[in-house]
Amino acid sequence: MRLDELPPRDDFNDWYNEIVEKAGLTDKRYPIKGMNVWTPYGWKVMLSIDSLIRNEMERTGHDEVNFPTLIPESEFSKEAEHIKGFGKDVYWVTHAGENELDVRLLLRPTSETAMYPMFSLWIRSHSDLPLKIFQLVSTFRYETKQTRAFIRVREIHFFEAHTAHRDYEDAERQIKEDLEILDNLMRKLCIPYEVHKRPDWDKFAGAYYSLGIDTLMAGRILQIGSIHQYRDNFSKPYDITYEDENGEHHHVHQTTYGMSERLFGAIIGIHGDDHGLILPPELAPYQIVIVPIPKKGHQDEVYGVCNSLADELKAGGFRVHVDLRELRPGNKYYHWELRGVPVRIELGMRDMENATVMVFRRDTMDKEVVKRDELIPYIRNMLSDIERNLYERAKEKMKGHTALVENPMEIEEVPDIMKVRWCGDEECGLKIEERTDTSALGTAEHEEEAEGTCPVCGKPAKTYLYFAKTY
Amino acid sequence: MRLDELPPRDDFNDWYNEIVEKAGLTDKRYPIKGMNVWTPYGWKVMLSIDSLIRNEMERTGHDEVNFPTLIPESEFSKEAEHIKGFGKDVYWVTHAGENELDVRLLLRPTSETAMYPMFSLWIRSHSDLPLKIFQLVSTFRYETKQTRAFIRVREIHFFEAHTAHRDYEDAERQIKEDLEILDNLMRKLCIPYEVHKRPDWDKFAGAYYSLGIDTLMAGRILQIGSIHQYRDNFSKPYDITYEDENGEHHHVHQTTYGMSERLFGAIIGIHGDDHGLILPPELAPYQIVIVPIPKKGHQDEVYGVCNSLADELKAGGFRVHVDLRELRPGNKYYHWELRGVPVRIELGMRDMENATVMVFRRDTMDKEVVKRDELIPYIRNMLSDIERNLYERAKEKMKGHTALVENPMEIEEVPDIMKVRWCGDEECGLKIEERTDTSALGTAEHEEEAEGTCPVCGKPAKTYLYFAKTY
Repeated sequence: MRLDELPPRDDFNDWYNEIVEKAGLTDKRYPIKGMNVWTPYGWKVMLSIDSLIRNEMERTGHDEVNFPTLIPESEFSKEAEHIKGFGKDVYWVTHAGENELDVRLLLRPTSETAMYPMFSLWIRSHSDLPLKIFQLVSTFRYETKQTRAFIRVREIHFFEAHTAHRDYEDAERQIKEDLEILDNLMRKLCIPYEVHKRPDWDKFAGAYYSLGIDTLMAGRILQIGSIHQYRDNFSKPYDITYEDENGEHHHVHQTTYGMSERLFGAIIGIHGDDHGLILPPELAPYQIVIVPIPKKGHQDEVYGVCNSLADELKAGGFRVHVDLRELRPGNKYYHWELRGVPVRIELGMRDMENATVMVFRRDTMDKEVVKRDELIPYIRNMLSDIERNLYERAKEKMKGHTALVENPMEIEEVPDIMKVRWCGDEECGLKIEERTDTSALGTAEHEEEAEGTCPVCGKPAKTYLYFAKTY
Repeated sequence: MRLDELPPRDDFNDWYNEIVEKAGLTDKRYPIKGMNVWTPYGWKVMLSIDSLIRNEMERTGHDEVNFPTLIPESEFSKEAEHIKGFGKDVYWVTHAGENELDVRLLLRPTSETAMYPMFSLWIRSHSDLPLKIFQLVSTFRYETKQTRAFIRVREIHFFEAHTAHRDYEDAERQIKEDLEILDNLMRKLCIPYEVHKRPDWDKFAGAYYSLGIDTLMAGRILQIGSIHQYRDNFSKPYDITYEDENGEHHHVHQTTYGMSERLFGAIIGIHGDDHGLILPPELAPYQIVIVPIPKKGHQDEVYGVCNSLADELKAGGFRVHVDLRELRPGNKYYHWELRGVPVRIELGMRDMENATVMVFRRDTMDKEVVKRDELIPYIRNMLSDIERNLYERAKEKMKGHTALVENPMEIEEVPDIMKVRWCGDEECGLKIEERTDTSALGTAEHEEEAEGTCPVCGKPAKTYLYFAKTY
C-alpha cells in the first residue's frame, strides 16, 4: 500500500514537483506564487548546508554580518549597469502605514548596493584590507518565468560573500580561494560542477567578469552559484577608497561569491531516483533509521534492543532515529527511502539471536548482514563511501553528457553540454545560441586553446565555448 | 591614551548609543533610519542567543520552519483586531518591477497571518495536535517613535513560536512549558525578569490574554518578550479545525511565544558599566582573552607561552583569543573590557618563572594570581560564577526598585516599579497611568489577592496592578 506514489524519475518535472512536497521539504501552497514555506525536514537540510558554508567562511577568515533587507532607491541607482540588470526584478515598498514614503525602498535582490555605502565608511587605510564578509539572508526577485521549488523562487535563501582588496591581483587571489572553498563544499554536498567564465553578454550586472558554477540536472545546466570580479566598477560610484603606505588614495577592487538554495535543488534533482530523495550523509537530518521487525509476543524486547542500539550509535556521533510507529516494516522502508535517509538498519528476533543487524544503503539499494560488534566502524565507512559514490557517479554522468560538436549550425541532436570551437566574436556565439536553442555557458575556467576554425565565420578558433539548455 | 572614551553609564542614553557602536555590535549609519547593520561581533552574540533558543525548542519538541517574508493583504485582514493593531505599522509592497500588484503585499510585522492559512491545511485530525513550530526571522515595523539600537528598530531579529492544541487546557499547558523555557534562557542570558498578565487594554491584537516578559533597565521597564493565549480567536477566521476521535470537528486553540533582539539590548543595558559591556559567558564570542606582558628581548618567548596556553584552554572547551597586536597592555585591557570579555589572562616573564598567570574577571574587576596547573578548573568555576553573579545582582537590583504605593494619585516620586491595590476596573487603571505618567504592566503572573481598597475609586481591591515607565 503506497499512498504516496511518486511519478517515475524519468518524468523529471512531475517527479521533482512531487518529491519536494512528499518528502516534507517545502509547501508550495502559500498564497503568494513562488514564495514557499520551508517545512521542518527541508529547513533542517538547508541549515546544514548553511553550517558547512559557515565553516568554510570561518576557516578562510570571513566575518559574518547581517545587513538590512531594504535598500533606498537612491543607493540602488548609483551603479548604472546594476540597476539596468536588476531594476525590472525588484519589489518596491512605497508606503509605510498610511504614509507614502519620500524615497522608495526595495527588497534586496542582492546586497551590493546595501553594503557598499557602508564599505566607504569602513575602509580608510590599507590596514583595513582585505575586508572579507558574508551573510546568509533572504533575497527577493520578481520572477516572471515559471517558478520551481528551490530552483526559481521569488524569495531566495541566499549566501553572499563580499570582499574588498588593495588591487586587482589581491582580488584575483580571493577568487582562487573561493574556488578552493567551492571544491570543499561540493564534495560534501556531492554536487559535480564545472566553472565557466561567462561570455561578456551574460555577465553579472556591474561585473568585470563573472564565473558561473554549473551543474547538470536532468539534461539541463543549473547555475548553482557565481563568483564575480568587480575590479573597481562599484568602488568608483560608491567612493570606496583607501590610503596606502605613501599617503596616496586608491579605489579598492572587489569580488563577490554567491550561492543559494539552488544547492538544495541540485542535490534533490541530481541524486533522486524512482524511490525518492537520496541525501548526502553530511546533510541528512537522520543518517540512520532503525526499523524494528517485531515478532508477536516479543515486541517490547525488539524495541528495547533498537533503542539501545540507537543510543550506541548516537554516542558514536551519528544522527539516528528509531521508527516505532505502528506500521508494517515495508511501509516504513518506503517512508524513509522517499526521504533519502542514507542508511537503514533492520533488526528482528533472528538478528538478536545472531548478534547481527541488516544494513541497507540508500544509494545502491544494497542490503548486507553485519555483526553487531563491527557495526560502528562499518557504518562510518559506509557513510564516507556513500558520499564518495554519490559525488563520483554524478561527476561521471556529467562528463558523459559533454561532447565536442564540429558544426553546431547543422547539428540535429544537440548534446546536453556542447563544446564548440570559437573565434571569440559575440556575434558567432549568439548565432550558435539561436540555432541550437541553448545558452552559452562561457569558456572553461582554465583557458583552453583550440585548433581549427570557428564553425560560424570560418576564422581561426581561439578557444572553446560551451553551450547548454539551462534552468 | 583612550581614543574611544565612553560617556559614564549614568548618562544612560548617551552611554547606550555609544557603546553599541564602539563595541562593534552594530552600525547605525545605514541610510534607512532604524534599520541598522549587524557588525561581526554583535552578530556573533545574537547567533549565540539564537542557538540557546534553538536548544530549548529542540528539547521541547518544537520544529523549526521558515515562512515567506511577505503576506498578502487579503490574508492579513482576516482577523479584525489584528489588522486594527498592526495596520498602521506595516510596510507595503505595491509594485514589482514596473507593474502595480493586484493584491498589495506587506512585510510581516509578526507571522500569525502568514502561518495560519497553512495551519488550516496542515491540521486535519486530533493526531496532528499539538502542532509546535518556531522560526527565527526578520520582522518589520514602521516605528514612528525614536529608534534605539536593538530596543526599537524597524527591522527586528525575531523569534516566534506558534502552537495549536485540541483545547484551552492543552494550550494552557503549553504556556506553562513556555515559562520553563523562559527561566532556563534568562539564567544563561543573565536577565532578571517578571512576568505580568497585561491589562485588557494593552494585550496583543487578537489575543485572549497576553503575558508580558519584563525586565528593568536604567529605571524603565523593557518588554523582552511575550506569551499569548489566543483561545480560538484566530482559528475561527482562519478556519483551523480538527476532527476528534468521534468524528466531530472543533476549532484549535493557539498560543504564541515571541522574543527579539531586545534580549541583546537588555544584556547590554543591564550589565554594562563605565568600562563598557559585560557579556554573559555563554554568549561571549571570546570568553577569555590572553594579553602577553612582553619584556625586552623575551617577546617571542612570552608570545609562545601565550599561544600554547590558548591551545590548552581551547582544548578545555573555552573560546579564547590571544591579543598579539603591537599595543601597550593597558590599551588592550581597555579594548577588551569595553567589549565585555568575561575573563582576561595576563602573562609575563615573572609569571613564566613562577608557573602562574594573572586572572582578571570583568564583572567584579578583581585580579588574582592563579597557578598554571590549576587554571582550567579555576576558570571553569569562574565562568559559572560570573553567570550566577550577573544574574543574581541584577535580580536583586530589580527587586529593590519595586515598591508598594498606598496612594498613587498623590505620590510625588514614583518608584521605578510601582505596585498598587486595584479594584479591577479599567478606568481606575487608566487614571493611575495618566496621573503618574507610567504604563500599567498588568497583574502578577501568579494571582495575588489584595486587602484594602482601590486608591482611585475606594471600592475593595481585588489584586495588585503594577506600573512603570517603559521603553
